[in-house]
Amino acid sequence: MPKNKKKVNAAILIIGNEILSGRTRDSNVSFISKWLNKNCGIMVEEVRVIPDLEKKIVRNILELKKSFRYVFTTGGIGPTHDDITAKSISKALKFKYEYNKKAFFILENYYGKKNFNDGRKKMAKMPRYSKLVYNPVSAAPGFIIKNIISLPGVPSILQAMMHNVKKYLIKGTPTISKTLNLYTVESNISKELSKIQKKYKKDIEIGSYPFFRLGKIGVSVVLRGLKQKKLDRCFSEIKQIASLKKIKIFKK
Amino acid sequence: MPKNKKKVNAAILIIGNEILSGRTRDSNVSFISKWLNKNCGIMVEEVRVIPDLEKKIVRNILELKKSFRYVFTTGGIGPTHDDITAKSISKALKFKYEYNKKAFFILENYYGKKNFNDGRKKMAKMPRYSKLVYNPVSAAPGFIIKNIISLPGVPSILQAMMHNVKKYLIKGTPTISKTLNLYTVESNISKELSKIQKKYKKDIEIGSYPFFRLGKIGVSVVLRGLKQKKLDRCFSEIKQIASLKKIKIFKK
Repeated sequence: MPKNKKKVNAAILIIGNEILSGRTRDSNVSFISKWLNKNCGIMVEEVRVIPDLEKKIVRNILELKKSFRYVFTTGGIGPTHDDITAKSISKALKFKYEYNKKAFFILENYYGKKNFNDGRKKMAKMPRYSKLVYNPVSAAPGFIIKNIISLPGVPSILQAMMHNVKKYLIKGTPTISKTLNLYTVESNISKELSKIQKKYKKDIEIGSYPFFRLGKIGVSVVLRGLKQKKLDRCFSEIKQIASLKKIKIFKK
Repeated sequence: MPKNKKKVNAAILIIGNEILSGRTRDSNVSFISKWLNKNCGIMVEEVRVIPDLEKKIVRNILELKKSFRYVFTTGGIGPTHDDITAKSISKALKFKYEYNKKAFFILENYYGKKNFNDGRKKMAKMPRYSKLVYNPVSAAPGFIIKNIISLPGVPSILQAMMHNVKKYLIKGTPTISKTLNLYTVESNISKELSKIQKKYKKDIEIGSYPFFRLGKIGVSVVLRGLKQKKLDRCFSEIKQIASLKKIKIFKK
């Protein structure tokens, strides 16, 4: 754990061949990261994308659960043969992979007894001792076991479920950020930024990202930290440098 | 190495706080994966996103370089203080972090002697023994050292540079894929898909992905493998099942 008790971190484990092959461009990382920071003050510090292979899931779950306060998994909890996340997590934790009674009841109710086939029943199977993350869209719940939170891969469903994860999480201090978009190139301000970064080393992290917009090139200087006052002070120092160097500021 | 000599794998290491924070949605994974498969028959089997921290970069480079034929890094090779990829890779490999003469010459030529400041010079520093990946957009080269290929994070520049990586890579057999979009839900075909997957276990990997499009729900069944004939056969078996179950096929 970091010294500052208000820092709570997380990792995201994306389970899915479709992201690795490039067929689907992930959008869950961006959503989860922003959501966790805004609503829970939790910072995502690592993301991994791995294929639907039990061995890989088991190994990555064991590695990440040890290193991060929370591990969010996305994908692989549906009804088909390639959905092996719940089973693999059970194996990693050495907890029985079994029907969760509540999940079984929810799904049976949703599909109706007659249509509750094996594929659908499978979505009620998870590691013993799991708690459910309710799914207001398509019934099949996610689950929480130890510090692992398993969510579906479909972005619209995942997004609707995040709210139901909140109550289980320890809250940290949200990271605040401020961005200054400058009409310049990085190498024109790198020396000055480096000096300011050194000065604010303890509290502020300064990122610098080139962009191309409307035929102009520029640099987004992004400041991130936990303390508003420090952030404001650092921001105005960078603004001063821009002014001294006669660099125009890009207004949105 | 896998038994089949034509399989060549890779990992992508994305270095950048802006992806972790959710500020920027990555688009390099999708591009690199598709490009490598199509042009070199190389399969991306893992992706990691980590912050701009030397310790993390060193650890992940050492882990990934051991487990994959190639490791592609994106981000962190620009002129600013937060660009520490080249230095960190040098540290991981225990190679001196120093000016590459060719890179120095290219950059000095590009900026002109007068404007070749320290930030710009920094982009010529990399691990000793590196080979250059030329950059037709903004001059600053990427580099190859051992099985690690370091590219910039800006998608348009990275995309323009991929072609210059090709000559350094061992070629594998490209994975071919076929997709069948069905007007159904996963749980309606999970049993049948599972049977077919078992039958083609050795050659074909079947993925099943729910989608929502134009107000309709459906499932994309994606078949991937190295052998065209097997793929075609497996594809028509799934088509037959759709026909037997009176499931409509979604034409694009």
